[in-house]
Amino acid sequence: MNQTIETMLNHRSVRKFKEENLSPEQIQMIVEAAQMASTSSFIQAYSIIGVTDPEKKKKLAKLAGGQDYVSESGHFFVFCADLYRHSLIGKWENADVDDSIMSMEKFMVSVIDASLAAQNAAVAAESMGLGICYIGGLRNNLPEVSELLETPEHVIPLFGLTVGVPDQKTAVKPRMPFQSIYHENSYRHQKDTVKQEMNEYNEAISAYYHERTAGKRSDKWTEQMAKMLQRKSRMYMKEFVEGKNFAKK
Amino acid sequence: MNQTIETMLNHRSVRKFKEENLSPEQIQMIVEAAQMASTSSFIQAYSIIGVTDPEKKKKLAKLAGGQDYVSESGHFFVFCADLYRHSLIGKWENADVDDSIMSMEKFMVSVIDASLAAQNAAVAAESMGLGICYIGGLRNNLPEVSELLETPEHVIPLFGLTVGVPDQKTAVKPRMPFQSIYHENSYRHQKDTVKQEMNEYNEAISAYYHERTAGKRSDKWTEQMAKMLQRKSRMYMKEFVEGKNFAKK
Repeated sequence: MNQTIETMLNHRSVRKFKEENLSPEQIQMIVEAAQMASTSSFIQAYSIIGVTDPEKKKKLAKLAGGQDYVSESGHFFVFCADLYRHSLIGKWENADVDDSIMSMEKFMVSVIDASLAAQNAAVAAESMGLGICYIGGLRNNLPEVSELLETPEHVIPLFGLTVGVPDQKTAVKPRMPFQSIYHENSYRHQKDTVKQEMNEYNEAISAYYHERTAGKRSDKWTEQMAKMLQRKSRMYMKEFVEGKNFAKK
Repeated sequence: MNQTIETMLNHRSVRKFKEENLSPEQIQMIVEAAQMASTSSFIQAYSIIGVTDPEKKKKLAKLAGGQDYVSESGHFFVFCADLYRHSLIGKWENADVDDSIMSMEKFMVSVIDASLAAQNAAVAAESMGLGICYIGGLRNNLPEVSELLETPEHVIPLFGLTVGVPDQKTAVKPRMPFQSIYHENSYRHQKDTVKQEMNEYNEAISAYYHERTAGKRSDKWTEQMAKMLQRKSRMYMKEFVEGKNFAKK
């Protein structure tokens, strides 16, 4: 196994960091690695905002649901779906790009582009010995986040990535078994098969929590998911996304 | 610079492969690396379909716009946004998860999850000396792709990833300058600044094509983008996505 794959297999989210800012060189290297991810038809439909202003970081930490490790980390990146430049290009090149830019297809392209870039950033950071945590909590309140970061129309902050020198040791969380995530030639959708696989996975997850908490927790994965999905969270999203002129057509 | 970052900075899409299938061990390692990417609230809202059936591969190559390197590669992966399991969990756990599953928020979560996993797969493959190319062309015709792969409701094939032993040497394509993609504390949306940056980038891209084609091409990036976005491609996507019960609420 090579170092790159070893880095990936050792991934765990880090939520406690030493008081040590990333250097400008580290930030630049992480962003350059992000930029080299594949991009659909070379569209590069994303932007990255690095937040260094202490006040803004505190506000973002609060908006993300009181996650201190947003402000108390070495650096905080925000990844955005971004077709703003492309909307301007339409005007400059005298091309009617409105339908494209407002299409569900290009919304997906920009979310995918931003995510591929972000994962390169995450793995690059981890390969440098840093720890990371994605901050989906930014989506709790995108109107305020957008105002704070002054993102224009055609730009949506999707998630944050908090990066720094780890100050905790966390465990690698066992993923779904290979045969549950990986299908060959056609999707195995038989409900009995899925149920049996999920039961087996439940046992693995229960055992993981049991061991990690000295018997205090033994959640099953399906229970966790049911509980989470019962909460109707961020139901403003469709209106917000369409209000930013994404996924309207 | 470490090996992982070196691998990323050396990324270029490969579209011609040697006739050499990936081994089961290689496939498993790539999928396991993919699975270790971060996932929103541990939801793991994606699936990977490996296509090995030669007939299916040919059909997919055709559906993707006649891209032979889909069928003529070492392996072809399809990454799907997937909330099918979660819809079943709702029934098994007697939890009302319908609003969540049909929300724009969870659509974004599943597209992001699938993309983070895919980028780990891509980098893992490249770290093993393999070449890769993302196949967004699958989205040309998702109804037929879904039928071919037998994906149920709540599952959307997002893109393919073709992987194999490279049989061509391609050049690294210069990305947008660091200062154009990276903002500090707030988004720089001043049109004049963006225009000036894009003009500079146009020169870099023109020079790149000029050198690579011995003077035959000298496209500017903004021209490429305007031309691409003028085509109203895949405008069926919103109806298709909502028809699969994603992004409806």
